[in-house]
Amino acid sequence: MHENRDAALRRLKRLEGQVRGIARMVEEDRYCVDVLTQIAAVRAALKAVEKLVIDDHAAHCIEDALASGDRADQRAKFTELLDLLDKARG
Amino acid sequence: MHENRDAALRRLKRLEGQVRGIARMVEEDRYCVDVLTQIAAVRAALKAVEKLVIDDHAAHCIEDALASGDRADQRAKFTELLDLLDKARG
Amino acid sequence: MHENRDAALRRLKRLEGQVRGIARMVEEDRYCVDVLTQIAAVRAALKAVEKLVIDDHAAHCIEDALASGDRADQRAKFTELLDLLDKARG
Amino acid sequence: MHENRDAALRRLKRLEGQVRGIARMVEEDRYCVDVLTQIAAVRAALKAVEKLVIDDHAAHCIEDALASGDRADQRAKFTELLDLLDKARG
Repeated sequence: MHENRDAALRRLKRLEGQVRGIARMVEEDRYCVDVLTQIAAVRAALKAVEKLVIDDHAAHCIEDALASGDRADQRAKFTELLDLLDKARG
Repeated sequence: MHENRDAALRRLKRLEGQVRGIARMVEEDRYCVDVLTQIAAVRAALKAVEKLVIDDHAAHCIEDALASGDRADQRAKFTELLDLLDKARG
Repeated sequence: MHENRDAALRRLKRLEGQVRGIARMVEEDRYCVDVLTQIAAVRAALKAVEKLVIDDHAAHCIEDALASGDRADQRAKFTELLDLLDKARG
Repeated sequence: MHENRDAALRRLKRLEGQVRGIARMVEEDRYCVDVLTQIAAVRAALKAVEKLVIDDHAAHCIEDALASGDRADQRAKFTELLDLLDKARG
Protein backbone atom coordinates (compact mmCIF):
# COMPACT_ATOMS: atom_id res chain seq x y z
CA MET A 1 0.00 0.00 0.00
CA HIS A 2 0.96 3.64 -0.32
CA GLU A 3 -0.49 6.81 1.24
CA ASN A 4 -3.20 4.77 3.07
CA ARG A 5 -0.72 2.32 4.57
CA ASP A 6 -0.15 3.94 7.96
CA ALA A 7 -3.83 4.73 8.44
CA ALA A 8 -4.70 1.11 7.64
CA LEU A 9 -2.13 -0.19 10.14
CA ARG A 10 -3.40 2.15 12.88
CA ARG A 11 -6.98 1.03 12.29
CA LEU A 12 -6.00 -2.64 12.25
CA LYS A 13 -4.21 -2.21 15.59
CA ARG A 14 -7.34 -0.61 17.09
CA LEU A 15 -9.49 -3.33 15.52
CA GLU A 16 -7.37 -6.01 17.18
CA GLY A 17 -8.04 -4.35 20.53
CA GLN A 18 -11.77 -4.14 19.79
CA VAL A 19 -11.87 -7.89 19.09
CA ARG A 20 -10.12 -8.55 22.41
CA GLY A 21 -12.67 -6.24 24.02
CA ILE A 22 -15.54 -8.36 22.69
CA ALA A 23 -13.89 -11.50 24.10
CA ARG A 24 -13.66 -9.79 27.51
CA MET A 25 -17.38 -8.89 27.32
CA VAL A 26 -18.22 -12.55 26.65
CA GLU A 27 -15.98 -13.69 29.52
CA GLU A 28 -17.67 -11.17 31.84
CA ASP A 29 -21.13 -12.40 30.70
CA ARG A 30 -22.12 -8.98 29.49
CA TYR A 31 -25.64 -8.65 27.98
CA CYS A 32 -25.85 -10.25 24.49
CA VAL A 33 -27.21 -7.13 22.76
CA ASP A 34 -24.28 -5.06 24.09
CA VAL A 35 -21.90 -7.68 22.63
CA LEU A 36 -23.78 -7.50 19.31
CA THR A 37 -23.40 -3.71 19.31
CA GLN A 38 -19.62 -4.10 19.66
CA ILE A 39 -19.56 -6.69 16.86
CA ALA A 40 -21.35 -4.16 14.62
CA ALA A 41 -18.68 -1.58 15.56
CA VAL A 42 -15.88 -3.98 14.55
CA ARG A 43 -17.68 -4.68 11.26
CA ALA A 44 -17.83 -0.94 10.56
CA ALA A 45 -14.13 -0.54 11.43
CA LEU A 46 -13.27 -3.44 9.14
CA LYS A 47 -15.22 -1.76 6.33
CA ALA A 48 -13.21 1.42 6.84
CA VAL A 49 -9.94 -0.52 6.49
CA GLU A 50 -11.32 -2.21 3.38
CA LYS A 51 -12.12 1.20 1.86
CA LEU A 52 -8.52 2.37 2.48
CA VAL A 53 -7.21 -0.71 0.67
CA ILE A 54 -9.64 -0.36 -2.26
CA ASP A 55 -8.83 3.34 -2.72
CA ASP A 56 -5.10 2.61 -2.60
CA HIS A 57 -5.60 -0.20 -5.14
CA ALA A 58 -7.49 2.14 -7.47
CA ALA A 59 -4.94 4.94 -7.19
CA HIS A 60 -1.90 2.73 -7.76
CA CYS A 61 -2.34 -0.83 -9.02
CA ILE A 62 -5.17 0.10 -11.41
CA GLU A 63 -3.48 3.30 -12.57
CA ASP A 64 -0.24 1.37 -13.18
CA ALA A 65 -2.14 -1.15 -15.28
CA LEU A 66 -3.73 1.68 -17.28
CA ALA A 67 -0.38 3.40 -17.80
CA SER A 68 1.31 0.13 -18.80
CA GLY A 69 -1.02 -0.45 -21.75
CA ASP A 70 -0.70 -4.15 -20.88
CA ARG A 71 -4.13 -5.49 -21.89
CA ALA A 72 -3.76 -8.77 -19.99
CA ASP A 73 -2.93 -6.91 -16.78
CA GLN A 74 -5.80 -4.48 -17.36
CA ARG A 75 -8.22 -7.37 -17.91
CA ALA A 76 -6.95 -9.06 -14.74
CA LYS A 77 -7.65 -5.86 -12.79
CA PHE A 78 -11.18 -5.67 -14.21
CA THR A 79 -11.80 -9.33 -13.35
CA GLU A 80 -10.62 -8.80 -9.77
CA LEU A 81 -12.97 -5.81 -9.37
CA LEU A 82 -15.89 -7.77 -10.84
CA ASP A 83 -15.20 -10.60 -8.34
CA LEU A 84 -15.08 -8.12 -5.45
CA LEU A 85 -18.37 -6.62 -6.68
CA ASP A 86 -19.97 -10.07 -6.87
CA LYS A 87 -18.95 -10.85 -3.28
CA ALA A 88 -20.03 -7.43 -2.02
CA ARG A 89 -23.47 -7.92 -3.64
CA GLY A 90 -23.75 -11.03 -1.46
CA MET B 1 -27.35 -5.41 -23.74
CA HIS B 2 -26.43 -8.48 -25.74
CA GLU B 3 -26.83 -12.21 -25.05
CA ASN B 4 -28.42 -11.49 -21.62
CA ARG B 5 -30.98 -9.06 -23.01
CA ASP B 6 -33.94 -11.40 -23.50
CA ALA B 7 -33.38 -13.14 -20.17
CA ALA B 8 -33.28 -9.74 -18.42
CA LEU B 9 -36.53 -8.63 -20.10
CA ARG B 10 -38.29 -11.90 -19.15
CA ARG B 11 -37.18 -11.53 -15.52
CA LEU B 12 -38.22 -7.87 -15.41
CA LYS B 13 -41.68 -8.81 -16.73
CA ARG B 14 -42.04 -11.45 -13.99
CA LEU B 15 -40.68 -9.00 -11.41
CA GLU B 16 -43.36 -6.47 -12.39
CA GLY B 17 -46.00 -9.13 -11.73
CA GLN B 18 -44.41 -9.99 -8.37
CA VAL B 19 -44.60 -6.33 -7.31
CA ARG B 20 -48.30 -6.24 -8.27
CA GLY B 21 -48.70 -9.44 -6.25
CA ILE B 22 -47.28 -7.77 -3.15
CA ALA B 23 -49.73 -4.87 -3.59
CA ARG B 24 -52.60 -7.37 -3.76
CA MET B 25 -51.37 -9.04 -0.54
CA VAL B 26 -51.40 -5.64 1.20
CA GLU B 27 -54.90 -4.88 -0.15
CA GLU B 28 -56.13 -8.28 1.09
CA ASP B 29 -54.55 -7.61 4.53
CA ARG B 30 -52.38 -10.66 4.33
CA TYR B 31 -50.06 -11.36 7.32
CA CYS B 32 -47.10 -8.93 7.44
CA VAL B 33 -44.43 -11.65 7.56
CA ASP B 34 -45.86 -13.26 4.40
CA VAL B 35 -45.63 -9.86 2.68
CA LEU B 36 -42.03 -9.52 3.89
CA THR B 37 -41.22 -12.95 2.46
CA GLN B 38 -42.49 -11.81 -0.95
CA ILE B 39 -40.49 -8.59 -0.72
CA ALA B 40 -37.36 -10.71 -0.10
CA ALA B 41 -38.24 -12.77 -3.20
CA VAL B 42 -38.49 -9.60 -5.33
CA ARG B 43 -35.14 -8.42 -3.94
CA ALA B 44 -33.57 -11.75 -4.97
CA ALA B 45 -35.14 -11.50 -8.46
CA LEU B 46 -33.84 -7.94 -8.80
CA LYS B 47 -30.35 -9.16 -7.88
CA ALA B 48 -30.54 -11.80 -10.60
CA VAL B 49 -31.39 -9.13 -13.20
CA GLU B 50 -28.54 -6.99 -11.89
CA LYS B 51 -26.12 -9.91 -12.33
CA LEU B 52 -27.23 -10.33 -15.98
CA VAL B 53 -26.55 -6.64 -16.63
CA ILE B 54 -23.14 -6.69 -14.87
CA ASP B 55 -22.02 -9.81 -16.76
CA ASP B 56 -23.14 -8.29 -20.06
CA HIS B 57 -21.29 -5.07 -19.20
CA ALA B 58 -18.11 -7.02 -18.44
CA ALA B 59 -18.31 -9.10 -21.60
CA HIS B 60 -18.98 -6.18 -23.94
CA CYS B 61 -18.52 -2.61 -22.69
CA ILE B 62 -15.39 -3.43 -20.66
CA GLU B 63 -13.93 -5.69 -23.35
CA ASP B 64 -14.54 -2.97 -25.95
CA ALA B 65 -12.71 -0.46 -23.76
CA LEU B 66 -9.80 -2.89 -23.37
CA ALA B 67 -9.66 -3.55 -27.14
CA SER B 68 -9.87 0.17 -27.95
CA GLY B 69 -6.68 1.00 -26.02
CA ASP B 70 -8.46 4.25 -25.14
CA ARG B 71 -7.04 4.99 -21.67
CA ALA B 72 -9.70 7.60 -20.79
CA ASP B 73 -12.46 5.13 -21.58
CA GLN B 74 -10.69 2.38 -19.66
CA ARG B 75 -10.30 4.65 -16.64
CA ALA B 76 -13.99 5.61 -16.86
CA LYS B 77 -14.91 1.93 -16.83
CA PHE B 78 -12.74 1.31 -13.76
CA THR B 79 -14.26 4.33 -11.98
CA GLU B 80 -17.78 3.08 -12.70
CA LEU B 81 -16.93 -0.36 -11.28
CA LEU B 82 -15.34 1.19 -8.18
CA ASP B 83 -18.52 3.27 -7.63
CA LEU B 84 -20.70 0.17 -8.01
CA LEU B 85 -18.43 -1.64 -5.51
CA ASP B 86 -18.71 1.23 -3.04
CA LYS B 87 -22.52 1.17 -3.24
CA ALA B 88 -22.67 -2.63 -2.99
CA ARG B 89 -20.46 -2.51 0.14
CA GLY B 90 -23.19 -0.32 1.63
CA MET C 1 -51.62 -3.44 7.55
CA HIS C 2 -52.85 -0.36 9.32
CA GLU C 3 -51.63 3.27 9.23
CA ASN C 4 -48.82 2.37 6.77
CA ARG C 5 -51.15 0.60 4.35
CA ASP C 6 -51.88 3.44 1.94
CA ALA C 7 -48.26 4.61 1.88
CA ALA C 8 -47.13 1.05 1.09
CA LEU C 9 -49.67 0.74 -1.75
CA ARG C 10 -48.59 4.08 -3.24
CA ARG C 11 -44.93 3.06 -3.13
CA LEU C 12 -45.66 -0.34 -4.63
CA LYS C 13 -47.54 1.32 -7.51
CA ARG C 14 -44.55 3.59 -8.17
CA LEU C 15 -42.18 0.63 -7.83
CA GLU C 16 -44.15 -1.26 -10.50
CA GLY C 17 -43.65 1.70 -12.84
CA GLN C 18 -39.93 1.82 -12.04
CA VAL C 19 -39.56 -1.86 -12.96
CA ARG C 20 -41.32 -1.19 -16.28
CA GLY C 21 -38.96 1.74 -16.74
CA ILE C 22 -35.94 -0.54 -16.37
CA ALA C 23 -37.38 -2.90 -18.99
CA ARG C 24 -37.77 0.05 -21.37
CA MET C 25 -34.13 1.04 -20.76
CA VAL C 26 -33.03 -2.49 -21.67
CA GLU C 27 -35.24 -2.48 -24.79
CA GLU C 28 -33.76 0.89 -25.82
CA ASP C 29 -30.21 -0.48 -25.25
CA ARG C 30 -29.41 2.17 -22.71
CA TYR C 31 -25.90 2.08 -21.15
CA CYS C 32 -25.52 -0.81 -18.66
CA VAL C 33 -24.36 1.38 -15.76
CA ASP C 34 -27.43 3.62 -16.15
CA VAL C 35 -29.60 0.48 -15.95
CA LEU C 36 -27.69 -0.62 -12.83
CA THR C 37 -28.32 2.79 -11.26
CA GLN C 38 -32.07 2.33 -11.79
CA ILE C 39 -31.93 -1.19 -10.34
CA ALA C 40 -30.29 0.28 -7.22
CA ALA C 41 -33.13 2.85 -7.02
CA VAL C 42 -35.75 0.06 -7.15
CA ARG C 43 -33.86 -1.83 -4.43
CA ALA C 44 -33.95 1.29 -2.24
CA ALA C 45 -37.67 1.77 -2.91
CA LEU C 46 -38.31 -1.88 -2.04
CA LYS C 47 -36.44 -1.40 1.24
CA ALA C 48 -38.66 1.58 2.07
CA VAL C 49 -41.80 -0.55 1.55
CA GLU C 50 -40.25 -3.29 3.69
CA LYS C 51 -39.65 -0.77 6.48
CA LEU C 52 -43.34 0.31 6.38
CA VAL C 53 -44.41 -3.33 6.72
CA ILE C 54 -41.95 -4.07 9.57
CA ASP C 55 -43.00 -0.96 11.51
CA ASP C 56 -46.69 -1.82 11.05
CA HIS C 57 -45.97 -5.39 12.19
CA ALA C 58 -44.21 -4.12 15.31
CA ALA C 59 -46.95 -1.63 16.18
CA HIS C 60 -49.83 -4.07 15.74
CA CYS C 61 -49.11 -7.80 15.40
CA ILE C 62 -46.32 -7.78 18.01
CA GLU C 63 -48.20 -5.45 20.38
CA ASP C 64 -51.30 -7.68 20.08
CA ALA C 65 -49.20 -10.73 20.96
CA LEU C 66 -47.78 -8.87 23.96
CA ALA C 67 -51.23 -7.76 25.13
CA SER C 68 -52.69 -11.26 24.66
CA GLY C 69 -50.26 -12.87 27.11
CA ASP C 70 -50.36 -15.85 24.76
CA ARG C 71 -46.84 -17.27 25.17
CA ALA C 72 -47.02 -19.47 22.07
CA ASP C 73 -47.99 -16.50 19.92
CA GLN C 74 -45.30 -14.36 21.51
CA ARG C 75 -42.68 -17.05 20.84
CA ALA C 76 -43.87 -17.34 17.23
CA LYS C 77 -43.43 -13.59 16.81
CA PHE C 78 -39.90 -13.76 18.24
CA THR C 79 -39.04 -16.69 15.94
CA GLU C 80 -40.31 -14.78 12.90
CA LEU C 81 -38.17 -11.76 13.80
CA LEU C 82 -35.10 -13.95 14.36
CA ASP C 83 -35.64 -15.52 10.91
CA LEU C 84 -35.97 -12.06 9.32
CA LEU C 85 -32.76 -11.00 11.11
CA ASP C 86 -30.93 -14.10 9.86
CA LYS C 87 -31.98 -13.38 6.25
CA ALA C 88 -31.12 -9.67 6.54
CA ARG C 89 -27.65 -10.57 7.87
CA GLY C 90 -27.20 -12.48 4.59
CA MET D 1 -23.64 -16.44 27.23
CA HIS D 2 -24.34 -20.11 27.77
CA GLU D 3 -23.70 -23.17 25.58
CA ASN D 4 -22.21 -20.98 22.78
CA ARG D 5 -19.80 -19.18 25.10
CA ASP D 6 -16.70 -21.31 24.61
CA ALA D 7 -17.19 -21.53 20.85
CA ALA D 8 -17.54 -17.73 20.68
CA LEU D 9 -14.34 -17.22 22.72
CA ARG D 10 -12.39 -19.65 20.51
CA ARG D 11 -13.57 -17.88 17.36
CA LEU D 12 -12.77 -14.46 18.79
CA LYS D 13 -9.23 -15.63 19.65
CA ARG D 14 -8.76 -16.85 16.07
CA LEU D 15 -10.30 -13.64 14.73
CA GLU D 16 -7.76 -11.58 16.71
CA GLY D 17 -4.98 -13.55 15.04
CA GLN D 18 -6.54 -13.01 11.60
CA VAL D 19 -6.62 -9.25 12.17
CA ARG D 20 -2.93 -9.33 13.14
CA GLY D 21 -2.36 -11.38 9.97
CA ILE D 22 -3.91 -8.65 7.83
CA ALA D 23 -1.66 -6.05 9.47
CA ARG D 24 1.38 -8.21 8.63
CA MET D 25 0.22 -8.44 4.99
CA VAL D 26 0.00 -4.64 4.82
CA GLU D 27 3.45 -4.28 6.43
CA GLU D 28 4.86 -6.77 3.91
CA ASP D 29 3.21 -4.84 1.03
CA ARG D 30 1.26 -7.84 -0.08
CA TYR D 31 -1.05 -7.38 -3.14
CA CYS D 32 -4.16 -5.31 -2.28
CA VAL D 33 -6.64 -7.90 -3.57
CA ASP D 34 -5.08 -10.60 -1.35
CA VAL D 35 -5.50 -8.24 1.63
CA LEU D 36 -9.14 -7.66 0.62
CA THR D 37 -9.69 -11.43 0.48
CA GLN D 38 -8.46 -11.73 4.07
CA ILE D 39 -10.67 -8.84 5.18
CA ALA D 40 -13.65 -10.71 3.68
CA ALA D 41 -12.60 -13.82 5.66
CA VAL D 42 -12.53 -11.81 8.91
CA ARG D 43 -15.98 -10.38 8.10
CA ALA D 44 -17.31 -13.92 7.63
CA ALA D 45 -15.71 -15.06 10.91
CA LEU D 46 -17.23 -12.05 12.68
CA LYS D 47 -20.65 -13.00 11.30
CA ALA D 48 -20.24 -16.53 12.67
CA VAL D 49 -19.54 -15.12 16.16
CA GLU D 50 -22.54 -12.82 15.81
CA LYS D 51 -24.74 -15.81 14.96
CA LEU D 52 -23.55 -17.65 18.11
CA VAL D 53 -24.48 -14.62 20.24
CA ILE D 54 -27.90 -14.16 18.58
CA ASP D 55 -28.77 -17.86 18.98
CA ASP D 56 -27.71 -17.78 22.63
CA HIS D 57 -29.78 -14.63 23.15
CA ALA D 58 -32.83 -16.29 21.60
CA ALA D 59 -32.46 -19.49 23.62
CA HIS D 60 -31.96 -17.76 26.95
CA CYS D 61 -32.66 -14.03 27.32
CA ILE D 62 -35.76 -14.14 25.09
CA GLU D 63 -37.02 -17.41 26.56
CA ASP D 64 -36.57 -15.99 30.08
CA ALA D 65 -38.58 -12.91 29.09
CA LEU D 66 -41.32 -15.16 27.70
CA ALA D 67 -41.37 -17.31 30.82
CA SER D 68 -41.40 -14.28 33.13
CA GLY D 69 -44.67 -12.93 31.68
CA ASP D 70 -43.12 -9.49 32.25
CA ARG D 71 -44.63 -7.48 29.40
CA ALA D 72 -42.19 -4.59 29.72
CA ASP D 73 -39.23 -6.97 29.47
CA GLN D 74 -40.83 -8.78 26.54
CA ARG D 75 -41.43 -5.48 24.73
CA ALA D 76 -37.80 -4.46 25.38
CA LYS D 77 -36.63 -7.73 23.82
CA PHE D 78 -38.82 -7.14 20.76
CA THR D 79 -37.53 -3.57 20.42
CA GLU D 80 -33.92 -4.76 20.60
CA LEU D 81 -34.55 -7.35 17.86
CA LEU D 82 -36.30 -4.76 15.67
CA ASP D 83 -33.26 -2.44 16.08
CA LEU D 84 -30.87 -5.26 15.16
CA LEU D 85 -33.05 -6.02 12.11
CA ASP D 86 -33.00 -2.36 11.07
CA LYS D 87 -29.19 -2.25 11.28
CA ALA D 88 -28.80 -5.56 9.46
CA ARG D 89 -31.06 -4.30 6.64
CA GLY D 90 -28.50 -1.49 6.24
